[in-house]
Amino acid sequence: MDKKQNLKTSEYKSSGFGSRTDNQPDRLINQDGSVNVKKTGLNFFDHFSIFHFLVTTNWTKFNLLVILSYLLLISFFGAIYYFAGIEKLGITSEGFTTDLLNAIYFSSQTFSTVGYGRANPLAHETNLIAVAEMLIGMMYLALAAGLLFARFSRPVSKVVFSKKALIAPYRQGKGFMIRLSNAKTNILLEVEVKVLLVMVKEENGVRVRKFNDLPLEMSKINLLAMTWTVVHPIDESSPLYMIGKEQLDRSEAEFMVLIKGINDTLSQTIHSRTSYKSEEIEWDARFTPIYKNHKGVSEVAIDKISDFEKVSI
Amino acid sequence: MDKKQNLKTSEYKSSGFGSRTDNQPDRLINQDGSVNVKKTGLNFFDHFSIFHFLVTTNWTKFNLLVILSYLLLISFFGAIYYFAGIEKLGITSEGFTTDLLNAIYFSSQTFSTVGYGRANPLAHETNLIAVAEMLIGMMYLALAAGLLFARFSRPVSKVVFSKKALIAPYRQGKGFMIRLSNAKTNILLEVEVKVLLVMVKEENGVRVRKFNDLPLEMSKINLLAMTWTVVHPIDESSPLYMIGKEQLDRSEAEFMVLIKGINDTLSQTIHSRTSYKSEEIEWDARFTPIYKNHKGVSEVAIDKISDFEKVSI
Amino acid sequence: MDKKQNLKTSEYKSSGFGSRTDNQPDRLINQDGSVNVKKTGLNFFDHFSIFHFLVTTNWTKFNLLVILSYLLLISFFGAIYYFAGIEKLGITSEGFTTDLLNAIYFSSQTFSTVGYGRANPLAHETNLIAVAEMLIGMMYLALAAGLLFARFSRPVSKVVFSKKALIAPYRQGKGFMIRLSNAKTNILLEVEVKVLLVMVKEENGVRVRKFNDLPLEMSKINLLAMTWTVVHPIDESSPLYMIGKEQLDRSEAEFMVLIKGINDTLSQTIHSRTSYKSEEIEWDARFTPIYKNHKGVSEVAIDKISDFEKVSI
Amino acid sequence: MDKKQNLKTSEYKSSGFGSRTDNQPDRLINQDGSVNVKKTGLNFFDHFSIFHFLVTTNWTKFNLLVILSYLLLISFFGAIYYFAGIEKLGITSEGFTTDLLNAIYFSSQTFSTVGYGRANPLAHETNLIAVAEMLIGMMYLALAAGLLFARFSRPVSKVVFSKKALIAPYRQGKGFMIRLSNAKTNILLEVEVKVLLVMVKEENGVRVRKFNDLPLEMSKINLLAMTWTVVHPIDESSPLYMIGKEQLDRSEAEFMVLIKGINDTLSQTIHSRTSYKSEEIEWDARFTPIYKNHKGVSEVAIDKISDFEKVSI
Repeated sequence: MDKKQNLKTSEYKSSGFGSRTDNQPDRLINQDGSVNVKKTGLNFFDHFSIFHFLVTTNWTKFNLLVILSYLLLISFFGAIYYFAGIEKLGITSEGFTTDLLNAIYFSSQTFSTVGYGRANPLAHETNLIAVAEMLIGMMYLALAAGLLFARFSRPVSKVVFSKKALIAPYRQGKGFMIRLSNAKTNILLEVEVKVLLVMVKEENGVRVRKFNDLPLEMSKINLLAMTWTVVHPIDESSPLYMIGKEQLDRSEAEFMVLIKGINDTLSQTIHSRTSYKSEEIEWDARFTPIYKNHKGVSEVAIDKISDFEKVSI
Repeated sequence: MDKKQNLKTSEYKSSGFGSRTDNQPDRLINQDGSVNVKKTGLNFFDHFSIFHFLVTTNWTKFNLLVILSYLLLISFFGAIYYFAGIEKLGITSEGFTTDLLNAIYFSSQTFSTVGYGRANPLAHETNLIAVAEMLIGMMYLALAAGLLFARFSRPVSKVVFSKKALIAPYRQGKGFMIRLSNAKTNILLEVEVKVLLVMVKEENGVRVRKFNDLPLEMSKINLLAMTWTVVHPIDESSPLYMIGKEQLDRSEAEFMVLIKGINDTLSQTIHSRTSYKSEEIEWDARFTPIYKNHKGVSEVAIDKISDFEKVSI
Repeated sequence: MDKKQNLKTSEYKSSGFGSRTDNQPDRLINQDGSVNVKKTGLNFFDHFSIFHFLVTTNWTKFNLLVILSYLLLISFFGAIYYFAGIEKLGITSEGFTTDLLNAIYFSSQTFSTVGYGRANPLAHETNLIAVAEMLIGMMYLALAAGLLFARFSRPVSKVVFSKKALIAPYRQGKGFMIRLSNAKTNILLEVEVKVLLVMVKEENGVRVRKFNDLPLEMSKINLLAMTWTVVHPIDESSPLYMIGKEQLDRSEAEFMVLIKGINDTLSQTIHSRTSYKSEEIEWDARFTPIYKNHKGVSEVAIDKISDFEKVSI
Repeated sequence: MDKKQNLKTSEYKSSGFGSRTDNQPDRLINQDGSVNVKKTGLNFFDHFSIFHFLVTTNWTKFNLLVILSYLLLISFFGAIYYFAGIEKLGITSEGFTTDLLNAIYFSSQTFSTVGYGRANPLAHETNLIAVAEMLIGMMYLALAAGLLFARFSRPVSKVVFSKKALIAPYRQGKGFMIRLSNAKTNILLEVEVKVLLVMVKEENGVRVRKFNDLPLEMSKINLLAMTWTVVHPIDESSPLYMIGKEQLDRSEAEFMVLIKGINDTLSQTIHSRTSYKSEEIEWDARFTPIYKNHKGVSEVAIDKISDFEKVSI
């Protein structure tokens, strides 16, 4: 990610998106970092990865699925015991509903390996069903342990980006700026950022997407403990040189921001991204300082990361 | 993986395969990415890694092994209880088959830690066997949890490559092209690709394998969200310059494609590879576009990744 | 981390801390490696990550939390059984305290899936509570397994740094030196170190923080098996050239030391850091050798890593 | 690890071992890859890491420890039940030994959560002990699952090196060669190797250790599927140029070989190393080819990796 590489021509299209505009939507990356792409023609298991879903879904859905699958499994085996005959579990019949419920209670005691033993498989049929249910129960527990750990150990970041990018006076000229931070209390190490500018240009009568890797004042920092204002200086070599708001709008400009870093709790590499369309750019503004020295400790107001103030030029 | 390194002489044989042709088979890498190599002289445990097998085998085999090992273990302990005497479990004898089965049922209740308690170790012998079986049962569960998690957390990719590589007009000259994508709904980050060409040449009367690292128009992309057409421009510096189909066939050409990237769900690095023999190359053809703009979202038809159409030159 | 990069101007501020002094405390990194920063405006879950806490807290607190949560959960369900009526568990009432305790005992037997079966849900209410408690118990166990593994697999290093940094004669001139080692018996691989010097300078009447990446005699070693004395030679190009103790004090100098390496047991990358303020620098001293050849094995006295002796110039 | 870096002066001592010879043993790295270093002055927990031991010890010791700790824990709780009074478990006394054993049997049923329920806590004392033992049992199981997974997921390699290094005719001159492979059936990716030569030289009357990074014909390969013969060409720039066996012996030469690569099953980086003293070098010999083309598959005889044959010059 050094400057020399950033400027290499062969990297200009390195975003992984094509240059044709006719068959692509207006925005390539959404502001939440997801990509504006849908894959078709995948087979069912590729399209809907159960593991991927169980690991990445939120806790509410995960817990509901745990409860639901548990109830389904114990009810399923309960029904089998019921049809095998609950007297073969040593339970006296008291009518359909009670009998079915009693079978499900017994099923839950087997599934969870509680096994109180009041109800109890007395015949070969019920014993064999129980032998099967015990294994399912053990595997359910093993699976839950594995999934919970996978959820825990997933590299999670909460990189927050300023809602708007700014173009404002910077040194002798102007600069394109965004501000970012990590909205968790831990710190990120070896943080690298890359800003790609996508603009649509007319070439021989065809509208073509042009990709530019914007050189940054600083593209890597050692520690992200506070906030980081990423700056692309708009000098003569910049594709933004002498370009105004109207031109940017007309070229359907999109600024893709890709960031990676290392979470210092688990030493995991995390990736995050966002994008700014030209309407999400504020001209002639600068980010409001959000640091405060409070009893010898720097306080950073993360919730004010998007705050900016207009500057008169 | 920048161009300078790609061209370094010392990297020419860097595929890890030797240059002698007399003791090597026709194809070095199979199209599914496995290598055409067998190691002999390994000791049993190196040759057959149980863990490696349990982690990489498919789910059907894994589940069958779980069930089989469970049945074997509970039967094994069941037989021991039977020989110790099932009256020492408080079970009344009812003949060989029933007694053995009852011993196995009890065994399963101990192994899974269900422990209904109807059958119950009454003597020292049966108690001691049970003490052992409980530990085995606990370890079986712990092992299952560990293996399930190892299976889940294994970096899995499903990089799909076009069935054929194409040699077709590209810019002013020709280009060698393959198309690839990720057949999962997640995206791959920092994807790097390397194409190695292996050709057999006569040197002083000896047929020698020559390795070439083919320079690519682009060897790294930031995001693989759609498809990627990897292109090696056939200019004067290319080993393919002025080479036709017959020559390629005669030199037993093999194009090895090595790819790595980062799975954005678990931030794991994944590797994949394939190879193309000269008969898997289509001349004068180009890949059919498979993108569609559907309500502002790019749709990619992954199942059509190998589709190409002939071009007239 | 090669020298060329170390000297690049754009890296000078790459510590991730700003250059303004008015809103920052005296020290940026504490000697224990934590940063002197507090984030405000985070929402509750970002600010207090339960998982982060459970994984990084010490074993005493972790064990206390395990015991406490277990007692709370079994007491909570015990109370529910009590209010449902302990006769519905087949327990004869013996007064409030005993009944409640008996309900809690039964609850623990269900939660842990022991299920002796003496007490036993006899009615729908108690059976349904038990069905719920079994699941909670299984998930508690799965969670404990996941957390224990996360704690185990966390990349842990115990890089120890000398308490003081030394400035002493080195080759023809002087050098800034610190000594470090790994206070675990395993070895660290591919260890890289970076030393950043922060000094406050007056510029146009404003006090500004200046960052310098100090070039090191050696910034990477292959194996850290013993100790490593990191040396910055103070030559003409060094920001420390011709600077004495008083000047260093006045400029509020802080030397940040960032280190990373690979733990060879689990192949995990570990990071550590410390900082030295000017009062933690010893002038004209050198580290005492702490190696001894004992029966053909090098012995290193890690506890003496900070030992130094004065040198007369 | 490119050549330019290999030749940098500042890297010459980059092995992490010092240059003084007076306080260091004859050999720095043992042939099995362990370092010839002992750390003293560590506190107990740093010196003896229980986790590190449980994860890296062999399976026989691990299993013995699992069994031993299980027996100790159930006996410990069994003794407490015994002293509390086994009649409080509903067990009729039959004399000291039987009573203690019965208490231990009950303890095992509680610990493993089997809970048959024949023996059964009837009093507050025994119930409270059982409440504690259940938690210990659950945590024991969780711990075992975590440890088993940590053992499984540990990056394991079995890189095998030829027993001897060879110095033999190579191209126009001579070369220093070692042969290595992976003695597992999986393949290693992106394998890098580094060879450091340590020689003792007299300087101003003091014997000083000199480190040299030997430039290699190839220092990185993409795939290690077969074997790799690592070659350092002895040309004019080599520290071995014009040096004979006697000189090498006298300089106490040690060749350290450091290798890293990526295991393609779990995408984990693995590290390995070995060293050759001058007596482990064979002059004027070459490695015997160990490849065979068997029905279109390359067969590699890993057990013959050290085989060499003398060459006449």
